[in-house]
Amino acid sequence: MSWFHHASRRRKWLAGVSGGADSVALLHKLHEAGFARVVVCHVNHGLRGAESDGDERFVRSLAKRLGYACEVERVDVRGRMAERRESMETAARGARWEFFARMARKHRCRSVVLGHHADDQAETVLWNLLRGSHRLRGMEEEREVEVEGVRLVLVRPMLDERHSDLVEWLKGRRLKWREDSSNDEPVAVRNRLRNEVFPLLGGITGRDPVAALNRAARDTAEADAWAEECLAAHRVMDPQGRIHIRAFSGLPDFLRRRAMADFLRNAGVGSISRALLEAALDLADVSGPASVNLPGGSRLRRSAGRIWFDR
Amino acid sequence: MSWFHHASRRRKWLAGVSGGADSVALLHKLHEAGFARVVVCHVNHGLRGAESDGDERFVRSLAKRLGYACEVERVDVRGRMAERRESMETAARGARWEFFARMARKHRCRSVVLGHHADDQAETVLWNLLRGSHRLRGMEEEREVEVEGVRLVLVRPMLDERHSDLVEWLKGRRLKWREDSSNDEPVAVRNRLRNEVFPLLGGITGRDPVAALNRAARDTAEADAWAEECLAAHRVMDPQGRIHIRAFSGLPDFLRRRAMADFLRNAGVGSISRALLEAALDLADVSGPASVNLPGGSRLRRSAGRIWFDR
Repeated sequence: MSWFHHASRRRKWLAGVSGGADSVALLHKLHEAGFARVVVCHVNHGLRGAESDGDERFVRSLAKRLGYACEVERVDVRGRMAERRESMETAARGARWEFFARMARKHRCRSVVLGHHADDQAETVLWNLLRGSHRLRGMEEEREVEVEGVRLVLVRPMLDERHSDLVEWLKGRRLKWREDSSNDEPVAVRNRLRNEVFPLLGGITGRDPVAALNRAARDTAEADAWAEECLAAHRVMDPQGRIHIRAFSGLPDFLRRRAMADFLRNAGVGSISRALLEAALDLADVSGPASVNLPGGSRLRRSAGRIWFDR
Repeated sequence: MSWFHHASRRRKWLAGVSGGADSVALLHKLHEAGFARVVVCHVNHGLRGAESDGDERFVRSLAKRLGYACEVERVDVRGRMAERRESMETAARGARWEFFARMARKHRCRSVVLGHHADDQAETVLWNLLRGSHRLRGMEEEREVEVEGVRLVLVRPMLDERHSDLVEWLKGRRLKWREDSSNDEPVAVRNRLRNEVFPLLGGITGRDPVAALNRAARDTAEADAWAEECLAAHRVMDPQGRIHIRAFSGLPDFLRRRAMADFLRNAGVGSISRALLEAALDLADVSGPASVNLPGGSRLRRSAGRIWFDR
């Protein structure tokens, strides 16, 4: 049963709609399934001038036709990049999420439905793999993120569907979309993975890399869920959110490494190098150093049988 | 401590040497570390005519100079492909392994040292991922395979070294190798991954894909080792090599799937589709069908609380 059949049609949902085929298909699927209280949220990144404004007009008029509310925000991605020294992708995502957080407050609805599909998932998996998140981690169908004090729930009901199938679905219903609107999203790496790497891999191996990467992401998600169960069963974290060293030391190597990486990530340590991870793991050894400096000035400390953050 | 330092220098070792930089570096490293009883094994695939014969002469003369015995075999890869309907890579590997098995019998030595390195490992990992071995599985430093009744031990001591470092190592010692001898190995997919995919991925992401894939392979190996410990602890396999359904059903989804895939693979089921795996998993449900047909005519059966092969 797909998400569109079991999710509540009566409650309110925010929907991220760029105007491209994927998010337009998402919106029509919501409408066709009888979702009545959708707030269409469109971000105008303003990176393609008149084209971007055309996307905005298209989305406004589509929302109106379907009887949905529509919220639009123009964001200054380049300004944000300069100000915060963020990459274009990070800046654009940050701006989008902050917009969703404001809309969540305004509409008293923290669930955001997004149009990511299997091809996006494959790109995410490969990109995560290459940049050092060693596992084949992809996006989850449902994920909570905290943005400006709001706990947004990002929902991605189309992760099993191929982009080409969504396009066929729209064509079969004679529905329109904005052909180039995805170019408005500054995702150069992803676009190149999609347009250059995947066709090359498919040609060389005779296999569909998108299908393989999606299966791998599902297998990894299952393994991760199980590892998390194990960590919970071993009571590695104490009620204060510190690592309980005795429980921690009883874990196999592989789980210790994973638990420590999760601990660092949850504490906001952005880039976890192999060296940092090893140093943090060594903290559990009472004969070694009792603290580790973290990027950004905070520290990880060991005392009284616990490992914790000293900010 | 590298393998070259802790492995026994006094015992006999077979070494696979093509004449290319990697296996020539392997041979010199063995010699430099004081390994005295090495049998150099060279396969002439005969795919490049006079060039292939030049490789053979080079390897013979190098072995002689280092004081090592040398065994050479010419194999008919194309004939084997036609006869057994194997791909070129499978045929060449099969011929090589059978040659090693004969040499193991002749020299009473079943350990074969091979020159695979980190770049080969990265290709293996990506190729395994794409063809559906969902995990990021690579080669192991030591692996047993049974070939024609001989249990060969394949040892790969250079999996952590980069090809470029091996070349520098040879150059630093003014040692020679056969530049194109790796072209004699019919590994078209691997060559294209190396020459086309990796540079493209590196260019797009600004990261080194070989390093990322090697880290991933190590993490996967750790996780796999742990999963195997869990399976052993749950006594999923009975002494007759059958699956014990009660123990099996107590496992989390993820481990059940892995145990069944391993079971099928160990029984020689070559290509395990998702559908076959699901059907095999459903066998554990006593209210469902009691057998599953396997490719090749054999069957998987459930009876008396066990799942087993009926050939």
